[in-house]
Amino acid sequence: MNKVYMDNAATTRLSEVSMKATIDAMENVYGNPSSMHGLGHQAAKALREARQVVADILNGDKDEVYFTSGGSEADNWAIRGAAYLGKKKGKTHLITTNFEHHAVLHTMAALEKEGFTVTYIPVDEKGMITSEQVKDAITDETALVSIMTANNEIGSILPVKEIGAICKDKGVLFHTDAVQALGHIPMDVKDMSIDMLSASGHKFNGPKGVGVLYIRKGIRLPNLIEGGAQERGRRAGTENVPAIIGMAAALKDASDNMEKENARLSKMRDRLIEGILKMPYTRINGSLESRLPGNVNACFEGIEGEALLLSLDFVGICGSSGSACTSGSLDPSHVLLAIGLPHEIAHGSLRLSLGKYNTEDEVDYVLDKLPGIVERLRDMSPVWEKMMKGDK
Amino acid sequence: MNKVYMDNAATTRLSEVSMKATIDAMENVYGNPSSMHGLGHQAAKALREARQVVADILNGDKDEVYFTSGGSEADNWAIRGAAYLGKKKGKTHLITTNFEHHAVLHTMAALEKEGFTVTYIPVDEKGMITSEQVKDAITDETALVSIMTANNEIGSILPVKEIGAICKDKGVLFHTDAVQALGHIPMDVKDMSIDMLSASGHKFNGPKGVGVLYIRKGIRLPNLIEGGAQERGRRAGTENVPAIIGMAAALKDASDNMEKENARLSKMRDRLIEGILKMPYTRINGSLESRLPGNVNACFEGIEGEALLLSLDFVGICGSSGSACTSGSLDPSHVLLAIGLPHEIAHGSLRLSLGKYNTEDEVDYVLDKLPGIVERLRDMSPVWEKMMKGDK
Repeated sequence: MNKVYMDNAATTRLSEVSMKATIDAMENVYGNPSSMHGLGHQAAKALREARQVVADILNGDKDEVYFTSGGSEADNWAIRGAAYLGKKKGKTHLITTNFEHHAVLHTMAALEKEGFTVTYIPVDEKGMITSEQVKDAITDETALVSIMTANNEIGSILPVKEIGAICKDKGVLFHTDAVQALGHIPMDVKDMSIDMLSASGHKFNGPKGVGVLYIRKGIRLPNLIEGGAQERGRRAGTENVPAIIGMAAALKDASDNMEKENARLSKMRDRLIEGILKMPYTRINGSLESRLPGNVNACFEGIEGEALLLSLDFVGICGSSGSACTSGSLDPSHVLLAIGLPHEIAHGSLRLSLGKYNTEDEVDYVLDKLPGIVERLRDMSPVWEKMMKGDK
Repeated sequence: MNKVYMDNAATTRLSEVSMKATIDAMENVYGNPSSMHGLGHQAAKALREARQVVADILNGDKDEVYFTSGGSEADNWAIRGAAYLGKKKGKTHLITTNFEHHAVLHTMAALEKEGFTVTYIPVDEKGMITSEQVKDAITDETALVSIMTANNEIGSILPVKEIGAICKDKGVLFHTDAVQALGHIPMDVKDMSIDMLSASGHKFNGPKGVGVLYIRKGIRLPNLIEGGAQERGRRAGTENVPAIIGMAAALKDASDNMEKENARLSKMRDRLIEGILKMPYTRINGSLESRLPGNVNACFEGIEGEALLLSLDFVGICGSSGSACTSGSLDPSHVLLAIGLPHEIAHGSLRLSLGKYNTEDEVDYVLDKLPGIVERLRDMSPVWEKMMKGDK
């Protein structure tokens, strides 16, 4: 068997349509969209078309779509921008959750150093919050609510529509990090009352290095990157036309096939979850009801996530212990701590994130290999030995 | 004849080696470099190799190379970062020139609003400054000198080595926007005493959406984009691995062939300049001595740059009236105003920027078409008619 790639929440392989569109643009659409000649106009036209595709899928207007270098830039821009906008009106309070991606949490932390105050709404043991919690946190000083649509580690899908309605009602700006959601579950900025939405091309089988910030008309966010007049003067830098075209193609493909694909993915996900829960001393992290179709996140007591990953890699299975963005760190995932797991259990986590190219055969393969690997690692683990003694 | 693309200062076609490297990585190196599995390690290794290639060409260390989404982001990061670093020590004075790219000028303007003071060193009629001017501008309050290596519109190459030496001597940070320089003329951060250097992949036949900020070791710039631990915790966001690999390949190709290529380009450039100067009421903007090998920038009195561009486009010649980043604006180029041209003359400018894929045949074609087009436009121009009457 080839590599079994189950790390699609970290990044994805380009879809065929996206690959084709991106390469075609690299070869043929190399003009600068700002240039006043045929090759420039051709690039500008392709850019307009891509913007329209993204706008249609979000149910927004094309003038509300801003292309960025990815989800992190989009998150930074939205949060810093909204914070500074609020400050002008004397509003210096921000609301988020305690299990956001670090692009949100670290931006919030930087703003705290600049004098903003931040409320971190605690998620429950399933990685969920209620819209009531958001309502209770909003004050007259609140400049922004930034809450992710779906969590990147445990896949829980938050009640964004209800949260959006409350923010709209209270007149507070609402941003959602939809990096794990767009292209995977339906997103509608009008229906969900979203003022700003971040997304990233490479999370839905599009190219790396490209993302979107949706900004509702009328919100005059200060720029994060100053310079040329690109993106209506709000995001400088020559547009990454091939990647933008490739992202639009990937998003359209993902949206067109979402329903069928999600049925396929959630079936595979549920088989993996079932198989893992059959093993002793395991648990599934995150909500089982409100969960991304491709997300499996489990803890295996008594073993280290890192050892598990290495053993899986040895038999060709690519998984993750949490967010790729923080790997290399020895700290347990802040997401798993947020849902109340103790350090020693959070250390033994495994995320398998399914995507477009996974198959039922691969699920069989994982279910065949995983129990033996976990057993072997436990046999060698002093922690496990101690646990078992304690059990007796 | 196919399109004659002479807008290489705006953006370039991908070189064959860069195209091949980028596509190969898109197809095969799709892992996230932060992931702890085979596909992740493969991507991390490719990233390390690309970083080493860029570092070697700059004569820096690989730990001093930070990948960004392009030149604009790199400029914003370097300038804002150095300004904030300076502020901590009570230094709130910045120095630049009056003909930088807008990624520099608009960042400076934003910092002025935050309370920084900026000295804009005026360039002379050839688009040059002296290192003495920089020396005279530096005060005890100076946090940063940011001066471009080569101008994007008129191609003048500034005495960066002398400026760097003065900054080093005075203990002031020195940043250079080398977006038009890297891959085109030799750059050596040690020899030129450069503390920070911005560059952009698509200006030297690499991919769009990727750039570099070189930051000398020991300079703790605050982050522009917060989040994951990528780029040693200083630039968040999943690395754009295929584009980074493609950029490194393009830069190596450009550097390896620079001497031969520049001889070829400057020969074509000089033929174009000679041909244009043979036409009446024309002038070449920028220094003839210290000039990028591929840059031609001319003024044609009595005509509008826009009309000239459209007419050239009609016969398949792609040029520019100045910076692509500001096109769409009706204001004349700030660069041409900076070298002292009156508004009405600055309006009639044409930039032809030569690159890797231009040929002598194309130069013949332009020299064949251009005089007739200029003559025809002048025949229809009321400004020209008035000029000619005044001449009599």
